[in-house]
This record gives sequence, structure tokens and C-alpha cells, in this order.
Amino acid sequence: MKYQIINGKMLLKEEALIPLNDLGLLRSYSIFDFFRVLSGVPVFLEDHLDRLLGSVDKMELDLRWSKDEIRTMCREIIASNEVVDAGLRIVVTGGYSHDGYTPARANIYMMMHNLPEYSPDDFTQGRKMISSNFTRDLPEAKTTLYVHAIHHQKRMKEVNAIEILYHTDGVITEGSRANMFFVDQNDVIVTPADAILRGITRRHLMHVAKDKYNIVERTMVMDEIADMKEAFLTSSTKGVLPVIEIGGVVIGDGKVGAITSDLHQLFNAHVAEYITAHREEFDDS
Amino acid sequence: MKYQIINGKMLLKEEALIPLNDLGLLRSYSIFDFFRVLSGVPVFLEDHLDRLLGSVDKMELDLRWSKDEIRTMCREIIASNEVVDAGLRIVVTGGYSHDGYTPARANIYMMMHNLPEYSPDDFTQGRKMISSNFTRDLPEAKTTLYVHAIHHQKRMKEVNAIEILYHTDGVITEGSRANMFFVDQNDVIVTPADAILRGITRRHLMHVAKDKYNIVERTMVMDEIADMKEAFLTSSTKGVLPVIEIGGVVIGDGKVGAITSDLHQLFNAHVAEYITAHREEFDDS
Repeated sequence: MKYQIINGKMLLKEEALIPLNDLGLLRSYSIFDFFRVLSGVPVFLEDHLDRLLGSVDKMELDLRWSKDEIRTMCREIIASNEVVDAGLRIVVTGGYSHDGYTPARANIYMMMHNLPEYSPDDFTQGRKMISSNFTRDLPEAKTTLYVHAIHHQKRMKEVNAIEILYHTDGVITEGSRANMFFVDQNDVIVTPADAILRGITRRHLMHVAKDKYNIVERTMVMDEIADMKEAFLTSSTKGVLPVIEIGGVVIGDGKVGAITSDLHQLFNAHVAEYITAHREEFDDS
Repeated sequence: MKYQIINGKMLLKEEALIPLNDLGLLRSYSIFDFFRVLSGVPVFLEDHLDRLLGSVDKMELDLRWSKDEIRTMCREIIASNEVVDAGLRIVVTGGYSHDGYTPARANIYMMMHNLPEYSPDDFTQGRKMISSNFTRDLPEAKTTLYVHAIHHQKRMKEVNAIEILYHTDGVITEGSRANMFFVDQNDVIVTPADAILRGITRRHLMHVAKDKYNIVERTMVMDEIADMKEAFLTSSTKGVLPVIEIGGVVIGDGKVGAITSDLHQLFNAHVAEYITAHREEFDDS
């Protein structure tokens, strides 16, 4: 990944440098979005750009680039890096502040990463989660506030957990980097609706699943977990990932459930269709 | 302020640049400290270095510089910038992360700013505060998490407030950038003790006031504010600043109280003594 973008300017990674007075650095005043580029196609690009601009609005950032201009930057960084499969990160910050506190005109940064690799076992055998009583500030914006999550990495490693389930005094919200779904005893798919980031994988999954399954967005509490048959999380990099234990509570029989497996496949097929449908737009040949 | 420091290296401000993968920028994983340099003397330097290292520990940052080395950097940046009066900011971040998530060896950044100026009226007539139900994550570490505060700047301006009083469902904690004190009907000075940043001005003030006044650290709730005779906040840049209204509730008779005025003077005298006592150490002539 040789190239990064700072405020619309394509730069060699070694030359993509910023001063210390960025308000993202000094005051955590920034939002971002992150999505997969597969076979050169940015997956669900329009959804991610819409959410990015939504986060910009919620944070009241003074961004001077339009959606079209940001889309063009995405095309350029993908083409320059000659990417097949990767992750693309867009960060928008509160700008270079004269006093280290007052927001200025927003900065936009773009960079690409290798994608995290998940083991096939993660999907066939499922993973554990830990839980934590924590409420994100501005939950509906995709802020860079991950202190709580990063601080819990050690605790996650101790039990080989893949994620943290956040709850607010028992009311389940979301994972630290994923949305949460459960399957109840009547095969109804349940997902929390309030104080969560509007996940794009979450929305697409609900779209592809809605004709086949009964999906309910409702308040759910920690005590209900023990009664659920299946659980899974969704995220842009993980897709649909089965969860078999949360905070020591085993879900169902502790094995990946049939509905979760089916949804995993439905979602992957949906992504494959998307890539096929959009490949021509991003074909540089 | 021509010079800044990155990882021990003194650089011209224009050359003090960092790559985009700093975990402070990407995930808000960073802490800082900030103090005044008056007449070339860093005020309460040892206290600030101790707190900085305490924040480093609480955040589990992998910092490779000792307190002595950081103190030397402080001396060097003050001398290079030929500073009389200014603010010195030290930021420690989670390092340059290979995947934008996993912490690496910590980075240390130092920069100097002009000090914010407060009007003499602020101290003789007092200022207003707004209030907000908000709990900082890791309250005892001085993290860079100021999204909530910056987001409320507009609301503060609307009522000409200087600060935000945070409470957790009614239990008062601290201001967004200051500690909080009240004077009750019996002239007892009351200050919250839990879930707060251990302010250095707060501690020094309690030290200079303890022989003359009765000071109690205890849980205090929002409903008690209406019964208080006086209120004030403390911070490194503001010292002791009188508060006459919080969230629309007028404190006492709405004027600066006698005890607050006295503490303001006691504290300023204490700072002046500190500077005199430490001037020789920082005299470059």
C-alpha cells in the first residue's frame, strides 16, 4: 500500500505526514469509516460514504469535500495502490486547531490496510465474546473512541474472545466493532435497535434475510442471553460470525446454529453478487 | 513557539510531522498533560510528570522514556522556545500501529501554546456553567477524550458559560477541564472525590486551604447545588475561578463569595512562591 491521501492529495506513504495540532490527535475529535475492497471493488461504497457523511454531521465537522469528491478519492487510492483485496480507511478530524481545542476546517485522511484474516474455524465452530457495561459517546456516529475496547484486549486474549458485548446497565447495545444478533426459541432473529452504530453489514443482512426469517429490532437485556438458541455478530470485515459464548454464558448447545450458518452463506452470496454487479465501474483496464 | 519534540527529538514546528497510523489519531488511544510555564518556570512540574506517568500506567502504554528523560525534554523545549509565559503540552499515544488497532511502542510528543487569557471580570464577577449527564471513560487518567466537551461548545456559547459540570445520573463528578468545589451553608468546602481526574490545582489548593478551612471530599448530587453558598472550579490555566450559576441554578446570591475570593488569592500567592523557589533551576543565563 504505497499511497495515502491527505486532504485530497495523493502522497507516498512516507510523505503522508501531519502536524501535531490535529484535533483528532489532541482531543479525539474525529470520525472514520472502513470498508473492504474485494477484487478491486469497494464493497457497499455508497452506504459507507452516506454513513461517513452522517457521522460528519453528527459530530458537526466542517468538511469541505462533497460525496462525489470523496468517492473520486476512493477510486484514486484504490487504483494507485493497485489493490485486489484490502481495507480502506477514511478518517475525518476536527482540523488543525490553533489552540489545541477549538475545531477548524476538517481534515480528511485515507489509507489502505491489509484485511484481518479470520480462520475458517471461526465460522464453523464459532467464537466467544466478553461483555462490559459501557456506553459509547455519540453511539450513532462512527467515532474513533476505542479506548475502552483497546483497554480490554488483554482480557479478551485471556479467554480467546473475538469481541466485547457492550451493555448499558444490562441493556444490550452492540459489540465494540460489530453489531449483535440473537435467535430466540421461536427462531425469531432479535437485534438491538437503540444507541448503536447503524452497521452496514447489519442492514444488508437484514435485507437479504427478511423474506425468509422473522426479524425483530427491540430492547434486549443481558439476562435474556441464556435463553437464546443462537447468537452472531456482523461487521464489514467479519461478515456474519457465529458466537457461542458471551461472558461465560454458553449460547444454546454451544455449537454454531443452523440459522446463523444459513445467514452467513446468504450474506456472502449477497457480497459476491454486489462485486459482480460493480466490477465494471472499478475496472481500470 | 518554533520548536516541538517528537520522541525526544527537537524539531522545527514545520518539520514536526507524524504518519497517519498513530493510534492516538486512529483510535483515540492517548493521554496527555498540560501545564503553565510562568517566567520560564514549569509550574508544579513534578506533579504533572507524576500524573502523566500515572495516566501512562492506567492506559497501559508502553513508554520507553523515564521521568528524568521527560523532565529533560521539558527543560529543552522551554529553553529552545525562549519562553517566558506559555502552556506546555505532553501527549503520549499508543504508537504507530501496523493494523490501525493493536498498540505499539508509545510515542511522546511535546508542544507549546500561548496560554488562554481570562478576563479580570471572570474572577471578580464569576462565570456560568452548563451541566451534562456524562461519565468520562477511565476518569482517573488524563485521556484525550474531549468529544463530549467540544460537542457542547455551541451550547456553552449560547449562555456564555465557561465550563460544563459533568454528573453521572445526578452524582456530581467534575468539569470538562476543571475540578469542582462548593461552599456549604456552614462554610465547609465540599469537593467530589470519586470518578474524577486528580487535579493538580485541586490538590495544591486543598493543601494551602486546609489550615484555614474545613474541606470535605464527599459524594455530592445535583440537587444540593441550590443550597450552596459559593461554587468555584480549579484548573491549571484558570487557577481558582468563581462560578455563580450552574445549569440555570444561581449559586448563593449570584455574586462571587468571600471564601472563593480568599482561596483565589491564597492559590495565586502559592504559585508565586513556587516560581520564586524554582526560578534558579530554570535560569538559562
